[in-house]
Amino acid sequence: MNNLTKEAVKSLADKRMPLFYDYLALPTVSTEHRAIPETVTYVENLIQDLGGETQVLDDLGGHPVVYGFFKASPTGNANKTLLFYNHYDVQPAEPLDEWQTDPFTATEKEGILYARGTADNKGNFIVRLNAIAALLETEDGLPCNIKFLVEGEEEIGSRNLEKYLQKYADLFKADACIWEFGGKDNEERFVIDAGIKGMAYLELTADSAGIDIHSSMGAIVDNAAWRLTQALASMRDVENNILVEGFYDDITPPTKEEKELVASLPFNLESTVAQYGLTRPLITDGKEITPSEALVFYPTMTICGILSGFVGEGTKTVLPRTAKAKVDCRLVPGQTPAHIADCVQKHLDKHGFEDVKVHLLDGQKAFRSNMTDPFVQQVVKSAEKAYGTDTEILLVPNNAGTGPMYIFDQYLKLPILCSGVGWSGSRAHAPNESIRMADFYEGIMHMIYLMGEFGK
Amino acid sequence: MNNLTKEAVKSLADKRMPLFYDYLALPTVSTEHRAIPETVTYVENLIQDLGGETQVLDDLGGHPVVYGFFKASPTGNANKTLLFYNHYDVQPAEPLDEWQTDPFTATEKEGILYARGTADNKGNFIVRLNAIAALLETEDGLPCNIKFLVEGEEEIGSRNLEKYLQKYADLFKADACIWEFGGKDNEERFVIDAGIKGMAYLELTADSAGIDIHSSMGAIVDNAAWRLTQALASMRDVENNILVEGFYDDITPPTKEEKELVASLPFNLESTVAQYGLTRPLITDGKEITPSEALVFYPTMTICGILSGFVGEGTKTVLPRTAKAKVDCRLVPGQTPAHIADCVQKHLDKHGFEDVKVHLLDGQKAFRSNMTDPFVQQVVKSAEKAYGTDTEILLVPNNAGTGPMYIFDQYLKLPILCSGVGWSGSRAHAPNESIRMADFYEGIMHMIYLMGEFGK
Repeated sequence: MNNLTKEAVKSLADKRMPLFYDYLALPTVSTEHRAIPETVTYVENLIQDLGGETQVLDDLGGHPVVYGFFKASPTGNANKTLLFYNHYDVQPAEPLDEWQTDPFTATEKEGILYARGTADNKGNFIVRLNAIAALLETEDGLPCNIKFLVEGEEEIGSRNLEKYLQKYADLFKADACIWEFGGKDNEERFVIDAGIKGMAYLELTADSAGIDIHSSMGAIVDNAAWRLTQALASMRDVENNILVEGFYDDITPPTKEEKELVASLPFNLESTVAQYGLTRPLITDGKEITPSEALVFYPTMTICGILSGFVGEGTKTVLPRTAKAKVDCRLVPGQTPAHIADCVQKHLDKHGFEDVKVHLLDGQKAFRSNMTDPFVQQVVKSAEKAYGTDTEILLVPNNAGTGPMYIFDQYLKLPILCSGVGWSGSRAHAPNESIRMADFYEGIMHMIYLMGEFGK
Repeated sequence: MNNLTKEAVKSLADKRMPLFYDYLALPTVSTEHRAIPETVTYVENLIQDLGGETQVLDDLGGHPVVYGFFKASPTGNANKTLLFYNHYDVQPAEPLDEWQTDPFTATEKEGILYARGTADNKGNFIVRLNAIAALLETEDGLPCNIKFLVEGEEEIGSRNLEKYLQKYADLFKADACIWEFGGKDNEERFVIDAGIKGMAYLELTADSAGIDIHSSMGAIVDNAAWRLTQALASMRDVENNILVEGFYDDITPPTKEEKELVASLPFNLESTVAQYGLTRPLITDGKEITPSEALVFYPTMTICGILSGFVGEGTKTVLPRTAKAKVDCRLVPGQTPAHIADCVQKHLDKHGFEDVKVHLLDGQKAFRSNMTDPFVQQVVKSAEKAYGTDTEILLVPNNAGTGPMYIFDQYLKLPILCSGVGWSGSRAHAPNESIRMADFYEGIMHMIYLMGEFGK
């Protein structure tokens, strides 16, 4: 086992800091297709400079996917391969005037490093590389094989990733995967998500006429806004139970291990209420399920938006011809987006709302790692070692958010866990994105210890 | 009785046409407070030039109200006074690029006169004056006293009119009133409305949090869009019955005469469907009430607009903190806006929607003339004479729209009927506003015959 001190790792990371700064200086805004070729080359060089081999995959459209590979050292375990999933693209920096530093000039102030991509996701890629660099400087070298999948379209929905995973499943074959993100919550607990929820993002539209009509005709003319309102209200009752037949079909029930994990999760009602300024009770209030159970195990149906007719200041007497709503259903393992969209349309048809049409705008399945896979405890154990006894480690069967883990599961069949150097002030996707340098160094240690555990 | 030929009246009206053109050239856009003093002076002069007396009332705020008076001739009936209600202000001309002629340069093409204010409402004022001018040229002169109330804030909600009517009730005292608008429908029938619906325009707002929240929190955090949707759906069922307790309180039941009139009204389903491009059945379909009964006798509850959260193209996963809806209730005689707003809030509170708040943005009561008042038949009979046997005359107890008739009723207590020279292509409030010259001449005849009937 490699015996790396925190001091030595920090020293090496500091020496390599210019590489990180230069990486952050590349304005790789995927939605604008900016700086893609030079970033791909930069990522390749970062891997090659440490002795890794690379392939740039660009035969299936979209921004190239970079494959990277480091072989286990002769004393390491060449039968175990760990896959790191990262992305080299970032969100736009706008609104620029809200940045206190230049978004593409990394700037450290009081232990916090500011730049677009620090947290999401260039920082975590550098953390993985720094861990490899540190291990390669030891006598024992790498305890396992390492693969990288670094894509360039994560911020625009990973829209070509599945094709690459399907075609190159053999190339990316591994035994376990560390996901691109992760970090500490607002109470400084290190959170390890072992999965993610899915999503069926629906648009519902109702049309009642060819033109907007003077509202005096409301005595006889039907109204798209009323139709959509009534249709939505038929889908979820005032107790927030989802009433769509078949919606809960096929849900994989949580295992004993998953239930135990969720039962042990802390939930701070006061801080949740304060954080969001909630004026209503939680929808789990007075129910048998806890907030943590709801967040992890229960699907949702959320009106993300609704629009019809006149919505300016004051009054306008119009009978709207059309109405639309955006409805986001977060899914749990077993549910499929197409089935959800189908159930909602069938529900509407059955209840006399044939005029309300459902379109599936975005669909992703959920994924949850097998909590009895040894990798789960390897990630937890190495986190305990890296973050120390002062830091509480939370293992969560799945995050309440959504991401494309399910396609990794489909083509690679492996456990996927999250580890990263984000914090509650990271402002991913927002101005003044940042990571804390202390988290950065700890994150490197976590990856070093994890590779050690994993290669045993 | 004056024996004026149509030819003589047309000839006089044509001679007076420059006065009309100059009146239309004044850009009296009330919402921009444009050209108010010069228009007031112009209106005064138009009345004075025919020998009428005027007073400009401007002691109660807002744009001045012009009072005009013509005394019955010695052979006329000095015991009967007819009040003409008109307004000198117009809507903005925007969007200017959609006008085919200059909005403030009256332009006649193929018998149609285009300019802002032709239909709404400068044309009808000139029609009244031309009728008086024609009568004054006859030996018998005016068959009755005539009063004018010409206000300058009709297009901005007649917001000061009630104060003037209250203070100057004695000045405007009359036996009957001809309302500012009227005309022919899309099947060339001349429509005489004898009243108008009222309105309670409500804004409903729901708030659930201080900030918009990532929609993954939808598993536990309540959602303003759902709250408002469910609250609205509780107010009106899918059969379009209004479920708010007390909503139908105090409605004055229609009289036998009103019912008979409405039973005789034509309703053309095909042309209604075609005009608006309706894709849904009428809400009266399969019910015991007819479309005409619904339009005249039944109050409405219309969602004019609803907005919450993300409503752009594509997807955004947000849990909205706030939601609002505009709800327009058209009222029938007996209902009051404050009571309606109160009932809706009580309904929401009673059904667990205390978080949804009701604000009354605009309130007007309905008005219906006494259909047995002799004035009603005088207007109908004179219309039959003016428009001839080829034109069907429709007498309607009240229009389905809304206007401030009720304040005339409150302070002056008189029957109010509509007559005007609008047509189905008039485009009031829109670009290319127009009247047809044939209607203009017929409208003058209608007023001449009406004054004759009224003064008998």
